[in-house]
Amino acid sequence: MSLITRLASKAATAARQLALLDSARKDQVLRTMAMELRNNRAAILAANAQDLAQAESQGLSAAMQDRLLLTPERIEAMAAGIETIVSLADPVGARRELTSRPNGIRIGKMRIPLGVVCMIYEARPNVTADAAALCFKSGNGVILRGGKEALNSSLAIAKVLHGALIEFGLPEALISVVPDPDRALMLELLQQRQYLDLVIPRGGEGLINFVTDNSKIPVIQHFKGVCHLYVDAEASLQQALQLLLNGKTQRTGVCNALEGLLVHAAIAADFLPLAAAALAEKGVKVHACKQSAHYFEDADILADDGFGQEYLALEIAVRQVADLDGALAHIQQFGSHHTEVICTQDVAAAERFQLSVDASVVMVNASSRFSDGSELGLGAEIGIATSKLHAYGPMGLESLTTEKYLVNGEGQVRA
Amino acid sequence: MSLITRLASKAATAARQLALLDSARKDQVLRTMAMELRNNRAAILAANAQDLAQAESQGLSAAMQDRLLLTPERIEAMAAGIETIVSLADPVGARRELTSRPNGIRIGKMRIPLGVVCMIYEARPNVTADAAALCFKSGNGVILRGGKEALNSSLAIAKVLHGALIEFGLPEALISVVPDPDRALMLELLQQRQYLDLVIPRGGEGLINFVTDNSKIPVIQHFKGVCHLYVDAEASLQQALQLLLNGKTQRTGVCNALEGLLVHAAIAADFLPLAAAALAEKGVKVHACKQSAHYFEDADILADDGFGQEYLALEIAVRQVADLDGALAHIQQFGSHHTEVICTQDVAAAERFQLSVDASVVMVNASSRFSDGSELGLGAEIGIATSKLHAYGPMGLESLTTEKYLVNGEGQVRA
Repeated sequence: MSLITRLASKAATAARQLALLDSARKDQVLRTMAMELRNNRAAILAANAQDLAQAESQGLSAAMQDRLLLTPERIEAMAAGIETIVSLADPVGARRELTSRPNGIRIGKMRIPLGVVCMIYEARPNVTADAAALCFKSGNGVILRGGKEALNSSLAIAKVLHGALIEFGLPEALISVVPDPDRALMLELLQQRQYLDLVIPRGGEGLINFVTDNSKIPVIQHFKGVCHLYVDAEASLQQALQLLLNGKTQRTGVCNALEGLLVHAAIAADFLPLAAAALAEKGVKVHACKQSAHYFEDADILADDGFGQEYLALEIAVRQVADLDGALAHIQQFGSHHTEVICTQDVAAAERFQLSVDASVVMVNASSRFSDGSELGLGAEIGIATSKLHAYGPMGLESLTTEKYLVNGEGQVRA
Repeated sequence: MSLITRLASKAATAARQLALLDSARKDQVLRTMAMELRNNRAAILAANAQDLAQAESQGLSAAMQDRLLLTPERIEAMAAGIETIVSLADPVGARRELTSRPNGIRIGKMRIPLGVVCMIYEARPNVTADAAALCFKSGNGVILRGGKEALNSSLAIAKVLHGALIEFGLPEALISVVPDPDRALMLELLQQRQYLDLVIPRGGEGLINFVTDNSKIPVIQHFKGVCHLYVDAEASLQQALQLLLNGKTQRTGVCNALEGLLVHAAIAADFLPLAAAALAEKGVKVHACKQSAHYFEDADILADDGFGQEYLALEIAVRQVADLDGALAHIQQFGSHHTEVICTQDVAAAERFQLSVDASVVMVNASSRFSDGSELGLGAEIGIATSKLHAYGPMGLESLTTEKYLVNGEGQVRA
């Protein structure tokens, strides 16, 4: 049996044990994990220093090195993150009654873990702790395949988490870090349909496409976020301006930042001068359609097929649209099924926007930056699905579970 | 653009229009479909006669020919099936409030169609009408790729359904039958991730594995059903006997029939003689473990690794187990995640069985034959998932939908 098959099969066996553990005991283990992360800060930082030294010698970008960096504060944030997960309700075991049939059998459902989740991600070592804790709380085994840049850090974090598992007599195989970043091993991992139930890739489009193209296991995709703010004819100018600035400039390198501004023709002459001044003040580069470009200094002119870029920077695409239908058509063509926002005081327009837009999160008069698990009240998230099957949008603990049917009778048979 | 890409892209465009159609209008279209099936009975039977003639000349088995056969009664059943779907609640558009956040934004969810569903199936032409109606009601486009044996019948049925679509000004592309059963075209279909949202293969294990191995689109699997009845020490003998006979003999060629009987050692001497007599009377061939074989005349002796067969016939595997844990271990090893039944009057044993067994339907004192959509109250089913993601167990209309987040605020931004 190969390393990968062994890892996967042991995870599946261990997960069956975890599926039956009660919530109180799972929370005890999680609290111990948080404590042990704090207690073993020095060891984790030492492993991280190895990764950082390698990154530097290999000339990784400053942004990449920053993602890789662990500090005492970031380790504290990891531990606190696990404590947040402790405070969340355990979805496993929740029952609901569906119906009683005329023959007297009673039909219900019970929530259960998926089994084993495989996370494939890049350089952020904190994902190791977050994903392990979310999978543990939801009763799932997890196999963590992070980027090679963060391997020493991830292994050090996993070792600490294993300490907590051992303390409670639980198998280490519940949380496994793939110890070799070889792509061939990742490919082998993606064939383990017998043992693994879900793959969640987090990273660039290339990684996600590679995983989707090669996986025999179900994959939940988190593609790019090309989020738009549509300022309707009946918008409050003040609100629209706030939503624009917050969405574009509060943080830029994230998938729920705004990448596009659509403005109803009837309000363009009022709103775009305000927008131009505010964006200029924040140093945002504007790419504009022909009709709106003259409101901005130094705007690039975008051709009709030039929209839909994910800038992840202080840049935005601006387009004037004839009406709500124009906005809907633009979003249909260029949106990424992530998050779309309308700013309007017109209830009918808001309603039609929310009904019509095919995105995982559709907002009225709120910042696209709220589109994440903790802001939406899920407590924590394992990802944001832009594919529709199983989950669509920010995924919390419940997304890591499924339901089985329970049927109870008194000997009924089928006629 | 190839035939398949054109089919898929047109289905995706048409599905966006259907997603916004209200329930009353969808029901009108479905009623018209049912009526048109009745009105066009002669044309459908003529097309079916072509398929049957070909089947005969190619020497297809009698069972296969029976599956293929349409009769006036079977066409009436198709029409009545569509009317049942009319009577079901439309899941699309259902909203639920989740929470309000401290900043005042309100979070809810709204149910929406998946988009386009691709059904891959074998010889039963009635699947064409059933699947088309379920997808239509749930707001999804559908691409139907049936077996070549039933192609003329499927095309004739689709033509009738198209008549109803046209009458209501809806695009025919909402319901497409792949007109060429070439496997290369099926492979091409499975690559259309841009346009298709879900593939449901229905048929033998070979077909399901082929689809899963080759699809870039999410697949919901419906593998075999190796369902067990476990007769606990505290079972009512009378109930156990009823459940055994109904599960094994009421219909044999179906996935929710019993294929295994597990009996607690403490009740074996009481129950197995009754079971032996009843099974013999029904002509059921028994494969038994060494400890239980002597209760039966002419039982084959099964080795410990010989269990887990899906007989789909008047045959059953019988094993004596030491206790509930023995039954759980057997099901863990040989079950198929479909349906498992315990017969017991011991509430604690029933509870532990339902908690521990990893199957999509776990029953207490009820026949495994209830494990289908209409018996469980879903009204109709598009399949029974034995994979866990998105759906697990009988899949009704709701399984063909997902939810998007709705966020409503008054200009809130993220701090």
